Amino acid sequence: MSLFEPSVESSIAQVRTDIALLHAELTKNDLVVWTGGNVSGRVPGADLFVIKPSGVLYEDLAPENMILCRLDGTVVAGTAGAERSPSSDTAAHAYVYRNMPEVGGVVHTHSTYATAWAARAEAIPCVITAMADEFGGEIPIGPFAIIGDDSIGRGIVQTLTGHRSRAVLMQNHGPFTIGKNARDAVKAAVMVEDVARTVQAARAGGPLVPIPQAAIDSLFDRYQNVYGQAPQGAL
Amino acid sequence: MSLFEPSVESSIAQVRTDIALLHAELTKNDLVVWTGGNVSGRVPGADLFVIKPSGVLYEDLAPENMILCRLDGTVVAGTAGAERSPSSDTAAHAYVYRNMPEVGGVVHTHSTYATAWAARAEAIPCVITAMADEFGGEIPIGPFAIIGDDSIGRGIVQTLTGHRSRAVLMQNHGPFTIGKNARDAVKAAVMVEDVARTVQAARAGGPLVPIPQAAIDSLFDRYQNVYGQAPQGAL
Amino acid sequence: MSLFEPSVESSIAQVRTDIALLHAELTKNDLVVWTGGNVSGRVPGADLFVIKPSGVLYEDLAPENMILCRLDGTVVAGTAGAERSPSSDTAAHAYVYRNMPEVGGVVHTHSTYATAWAARAEAIPCVITAMADEFGGEIPIGPFAIIGDDSIGRGIVQTLTGHRSRAVLMQNHGPFTIGKNARDAVKAAVMVEDVARTVQAARAGGPLVPIPQAAIDSLFDRYQNVYGQAPQGAL
Amino acid sequence: MSLFEPSVESSIAQVRTDIALLHAELTKNDLVVWTGGNVSGRVPGADLFVIKPSGVLYEDLAPENMILCRLDGTVVAGTAGAERSPSSDTAAHAYVYRNMPEVGGVVHTHSTYATAWAARAEAIPCVITAMADEFGGEIPIGPFAIIGDDSIGRGIVQTLTGHRSRAVLMQNHGPFTIGKNARDAVKAAVMVEDVARTVQAARAGGPLVPIPQAAIDSLFDRYQNVYGQAPQGAL
Repeated sequence: MSLFEPSVESSIAQVRTDIALLHAELTKNDLVVWTGGNVSGRVPGADLFVIKPSGVLYEDLAPENMILCRLDGTVVAGTAGAERSPSSDTAAHAYVYRNMPEVGGVVHTHSTYATAWAARAEAIPCVITAMADEFGGEIPIGPFAIIGDDSIGRGIVQTLTGHRSRAVLMQNHGPFTIGKNARDAVKAAVMVEDVARTVQAARAGGPLVPIPQAAIDSLFDRYQNVYGQAPQGAL
Repeated sequence: MSLFEPSVESSIAQVRTDIALLHAELTKNDLVVWTGGNVSGRVPGADLFVIKPSGVLYEDLAPENMILCRLDGTVVAGTAGAERSPSSDTAAHAYVYRNMPEVGGVVHTHSTYATAWAARAEAIPCVITAMADEFGGEIPIGPFAIIGDDSIGRGIVQTLTGHRSRAVLMQNHGPFTIGKNARDAVKAAVMVEDVARTVQAARAGGPLVPIPQAAIDSLFDRYQNVYGQAPQGAL
Repeated sequence: MSLFEPSVESSIAQVRTDIALLHAELTKNDLVVWTGGNVSGRVPGADLFVIKPSGVLYEDLAPENMILCRLDGTVVAGTAGAERSPSSDTAAHAYVYRNMPEVGGVVHTHSTYATAWAARAEAIPCVITAMADEFGGEIPIGPFAIIGDDSIGRGIVQTLTGHRSRAVLMQNHGPFTIGKNARDAVKAAVMVEDVARTVQAARAGGPLVPIPQAAIDSLFDRYQNVYGQAPQGAL
Repeated sequence: MSLFEPSVESSIAQVRTDIALLHAELTKNDLVVWTGGNVSGRVPGADLFVIKPSGVLYEDLAPENMILCRLDGTVVAGTAGAERSPSSDTAAHAYVYRNMPEVGGVVHTHSTYATAWAARAEAIPCVITAMADEFGGEIPIGPFAIIGDDSIGRGIVQTLTGHRSRAVLMQNHGPFTIGKNARDAVKAAVMVEDVARTVQAARAGGPLVPIPQAAIDSLFDRYQNVYGQAPQGAL
């Protein structure tokens, strides 16, 4: 007996597959070590999302051990994987889904260079055109917050609401990224590490040359509306 | 019914295969992330070039989805891949092919260290013999220019015309490289990142020792005329 | 004829398999080059441990050429692999097993960034939450000691006894990590390099923001007791 | 009809296989890009050595296209691969074999961090025990010399004769390593990059702690005589 209508069950199955596969992008792009990092995705047409189990090795991830959660962060009992604990960051993901209805995917990593900026509580300045394209300006710092209540989720939502950037560097912690779906949030996680590494390397060698704000605006507008095989739209 | 004479169709097929395969060198050498970077190659004996589609993942690249363009940057309708948009950097590649007839291949990446020098608008000084061999001196900075007209292409051509270097670091953007064919331009993209990383590491530890100009000239001359299994010739 | 009771023989076989496989994590995580690095594991219910042979390439490691040792570091003659010399760090591993009965696994590498802090004799400050989770504070420096007697083992034991950290950076040498079993010690070796790299990168760009001690204590307590699919317990 | 006696032919075949396979260690350890880098090995019992062809991609290297040379650096006509040009560094390898009869293998790369120290003309100080083990002290700088005569070979020989180190950093150029055979020289090439990277990272974070000379001497002596499955002996 299914818990949900067939169309929702079908969406859940698709999101489970997507989320399991997208975790491979985290290892392929050297964003995580051991069991660190997590990807989640909203189930279209339902108040549900799918997330990685806690403390499970990347090579053991499969659609059937992804965990289905409600938007309050509780696990849906009786579904595949529900015997395991969800990622210890589940409350933060849930808070984002409850408070940012346009968000379809959330990613968290401790990738090296993004976390380095976070340990300095320093926003990444926008000095490369790829960063203007993807993030529309600087990548902001979120507040210091630790696990145990909604403070991480609240910090993400407060920092990114109304901001062009799909990435926030939570102070002393690491990057969280959002996207219109899980794939888009993974792309943001890959790109935030790429720009964090490049801008750190750039500044290590001498003064940075700023990009004029009008050029940043123009690049962001074009990239969000023209790039790729179909319009993406800013989040 | 073919659009071109058999010999041109055969050249197009060969260039499609080459361009699809050469993109693998960009990922293998860690020059790109996600869908970033692009390689193009001129079709010998025709006013045509082949380039990567926009926003398509590296693992989905194949000869039949490479895109055939005229030298004004427009897609040749009715050919394989033409239903897709070409790389958003197509106009810059086209400008180079129109204005540098000796160029047979163009590559663009946002590789980390080359882009770091570009964000400082700082040319890479020639302090290692491999750089003298390959580039004949410093690697120059091109002007700040953004997508939307011919300004990127013009900046590449103005900087590299009459210059020994096959690589230019476009300010705040990243490296563009040229070559007598696409493979040669890919080699330049690999080498520019290698020297950008090595010289940045060198200078981070203390003062650099310059190479005398006469030695640079001698190394460049020898490498362009003697190295490898057949003479290469400066571009 | 077996040297040990069947249950001990069965434990030995399991530990041989585990130790051979866990060495692959060292190469996969870029912690070692050539034949460097070693993992050992205590045999449950016996005064024995299993360790890698000396100077053998990673691709040649297999359960049957792992070496069975007594807690005084001598090889058990007549067992598989006993014709080879054990790792040159065997005496240090043995000293740890003799003096820290709660330790079930020991790992040693010369991983780049952990060794860099060791060459400065500088403890890694706790400025990222992942480090608070995993190590409960700073990662300490152990004394300068060279091979030839028990001084390395003694330095490890004196530094880590009563310390939250499962990793010590032996001065001018590199990291040693301990764990409740070999897998746990390997995890610590992976994580110590990850935090050594991240904190070095963070500080290279400017001043670090400290984490309040109460937050470090809270994170360490939660992680050791809640994280993952089953309680782990501080070592 | 064979050019050499059967025992020499057999040795040549073995060295061809070894040299072709050992090049894979250069790419696996990220010491080279594109066609850079070369390994050679002396043929035991003959005034011959085997070296890589010039400008050939790593994936195309096979025993039959390695090139057999005399100790004056000339190619032995009529042998496999002889239709190709040998590595452009062949003269330097030949000079070493002629002047250092105890050397059985030579390796040259432009690996990033070793080359960075070379571009500063700065010897790598011995501040980690692995470096004392392997190189017995600092890794020296060789003179600036360019291709075209015996000056590179002479610089290698003058620097390494009577020196404990099997690696020299040729100024503005990169590392050359020697060994009792080709495998041993490859190991030195892997280790010199590892220590160059580690010591650069160490010093980037603050002052280095020196190792007392007596400890360096003791470590070097032990490692050359005890480590591994059989005595190695200092070169």
